[in-house]
Amino acid sequence: MSDFAAPSGLVTLTTDFGRIDPYAGIMKGVILARHPAARVVDLTHDVPPFRPEVGGFWLRRAARWFPAGTVHVAVVDPGVGTRRDIVCVCRDAQAFVAPDNGLAEELTRGTDAAAVHQLAQPTLERLGALAASATFHGRDIFAPVAAALSAGEIQPAELGPAVTDLVPSRMPRPVHGPEIEGQIVLADRYGNLVTNIAVERLREFRRPVVKAPPLALALSTTYGEVAEGEYLALINSFELLEIARNGGSAAAGLGLGEGHRVTVVEGAD
Amino acid sequence: MSDFAAPSGLVTLTTDFGRIDPYAGIMKGVILARHPAARVVDLTHDVPPFRPEVGGFWLRRAARWFPAGTVHVAVVDPGVGTRRDIVCVCRDAQAFVAPDNGLAEELTRGTDAAAVHQLAQPTLERLGALAASATFHGRDIFAPVAAALSAGEIQPAELGPAVTDLVPSRMPRPVHGPEIEGQIVLADRYGNLVTNIAVERLREFRRPVVKAPPLALALSTTYGEVAEGEYLALINSFELLEIARNGGSAAAGLGLGEGHRVTVVEGAD
Amino acid sequence: MSDFAAPSGLVTLTTDFGRIDPYAGIMKGVILARHPAARVVDLTHDVPPFRPEVGGFWLRRAARWFPAGTVHVAVVDPGVGTRRDIVCVCRDAQAFVAPDNGLAEELTRGTDAAAVHQLAQPTLERLGALAASATFHGRDIFAPVAAALSAGEIQPAELGPAVTDLVPSRMPRPVHGPEIEGQIVLADRYGNLVTNIAVERLREFRRPVVKAPPLALALSTTYGEVAEGEYLALINSFELLEIARNGGSAAAGLGLGEGHRVTVVEGAD
Repeated sequence: MSDFAAPSGLVTLTTDFGRIDPYAGIMKGVILARHPAARVVDLTHDVPPFRPEVGGFWLRRAARWFPAGTVHVAVVDPGVGTRRDIVCVCRDAQAFVAPDNGLAEELTRGTDAAAVHQLAQPTLERLGALAASATFHGRDIFAPVAAALSAGEIQPAELGPAVTDLVPSRMPRPVHGPEIEGQIVLADRYGNLVTNIAVERLREFRRPVVKAPPLALALSTTYGEVAEGEYLALINSFELLEIARNGGSAAAGLGLGEGHRVTVVEGAD
Repeated sequence: MSDFAAPSGLVTLTTDFGRIDPYAGIMKGVILARHPAARVVDLTHDVPPFRPEVGGFWLRRAARWFPAGTVHVAVVDPGVGTRRDIVCVCRDAQAFVAPDNGLAEELTRGTDAAAVHQLAQPTLERLGALAASATFHGRDIFAPVAAALSAGEIQPAELGPAVTDLVPSRMPRPVHGPEIEGQIVLADRYGNLVTNIAVERLREFRRPVVKAPPLALALSTTYGEVAEGEYLALINSFELLEIARNGGSAAAGLGLGEGHRVTVVEGAD
Repeated sequence: MSDFAAPSGLVTLTTDFGRIDPYAGIMKGVILARHPAARVVDLTHDVPPFRPEVGGFWLRRAARWFPAGTVHVAVVDPGVGTRRDIVCVCRDAQAFVAPDNGLAEELTRGTDAAAVHQLAQPTLERLGALAASATFHGRDIFAPVAAALSAGEIQPAELGPAVTDLVPSRMPRPVHGPEIEGQIVLADRYGNLVTNIAVERLREFRRPVVKAPPLALALSTTYGEVAEGEYLALINSFELLEIARNGGSAAAGLGLGEGHRVTVVEGAD
């Protein structure tokens, strides 16, 4: 991907390491030891363990706000030490290093111009990363690769062979018919219920009504548009349909969370 | 504020975003995309949602330890997308970008030399930040403004008109009479109970006795001054009266927390 | 320690401050005010309060992944404000600033080449750090010392007199006989049970069997080597014996945690 030729020096981290153990800090040590001018930004270390697709879902949407040439590293990797591949997805002039366990495939969504290369054994040799532990590839493989990419010492296409078949993301996709059948994919810190329904598909409705029984909501523009304590549906800042509550938590108030069905139907004139 | 003319390149973040969602990381992406040499420091992302005044309370005290020219960004903003202003408070050669919802006013306390400017629409145009989402102004407005201030591309006074009337902080103030009537404003990680009573007012007492019934405590200097497990009152490192417990949590041990009344009276000779 | 003469500019933080209060951010402000080119990396802020030895245990193992010339600061300091010393441990071309409360001694383990200097009063004067609060030495003493070391303004040996007797770490050590009697020292984010038994001693066994009744496990190499849901023993990426569960939490599944006994015995041929 020739437009990655000028790395920004920025590296982001998306993991399921949590923040109590020093694992993320250790990855930063490896990156900075190899590329002292890198600047490392934490996106999140609280992806639910064993849910790589959730990491990919957020990372794809967060990446847009970073400059061209940013290297994103995602380590949600329950299969560490087994035969799963590590790949580099290039899109939008950024590089994403991720395990091929559904996380990487999630990152290829929404574009036709993603190029994916598999990390090959000779590359590890070239990077001096052959003596990897069996259980901490974030430190022993992902970090050295990210350092080399962000330093411009290696190009994504040099990591290994191009691949096209990735392990599919287990993130549920909405079903589009006369209605949209989607679901809540996560509740954020504020109790906002983020769905997998994207703004583009909502535009197909003249008067979309968002149904999460017993609620049936027209679209609002912002939280303050309804009275304090009331629920609303809106397009959030990641262009996804969201159910929220003004001045409170929709998740707590409604008792809803991940996996709950949300539909969009055409409203009456 | 002419003494802000030389930004330090440091930007701090104080938000209620939590650390599970990638919101703070995304703000850093925007800041670093616009000002690659900025260095961004997290103060806290765990201000209680809907409590902007608590963010201001901490930020005002933390800012003192950063160099002149630092830009502090505070996003505790339940009114995002409604008609609340964003302002820039300049004091002590630092700039604070915050919503005018009580947070900003808290930042003006303790000085007569704060200058406040309101962020005006033409400034957003100048910064290329007109297409803001309705729900994530931290990313779409606060971050671009912080980047421009920390890069020296704009001066605080250029952001918009000077303002004097800010929405008052809801942080309770102690009542000063022959006694001081204050309250606990937060319990920190160690269970130390921080009050809103400042050291200056305590100096008016010859032998201050701190009362949080059933406790009545003389002032100690440090935790180890009382026996393990005992309670004490001391002036903490932010020059606020604090009730603590040597080797344990005063909050847990006493069952006290935010809002509980604490008084200071003159002790017997 | 002459090989510390070229600081890397990297400073790591290991504390028990948590992340809700702005204490760690404030330390960064002090470090960056004094040494603007420093890069500060969080290792952890969640060392259990009152357990300095746990901070030392992790820091010693994490430090290996940082470059020569890194300054590590550890503040788990329940005795702050009392007469406990602050020391600087130099080993492996890195400097560690820590309280002499068991944390520092833990950092000297596993090498014969650690040099330890005590922070002396004239050094605080030289660094302009005499007016320390009684309760936040992380900000008022540790941060200024770290800034000066990482800027190369002072050498570890100039901090004060060399010392040899440190307060011993309370971290339990395994007992080595025909069997090894060790224990679980922590459960990490994934519920992996990390023991205090190091790989070197396991090499003395031909067929080590790891016993944590009712489990008796041979050594595996990686999580995926056993069936999903099964338990395994392996050498983790810090070269410590660990009991884990493929696809789940060993801590939750076994109801085991810190302090539980783990033994290694010779297996039958």
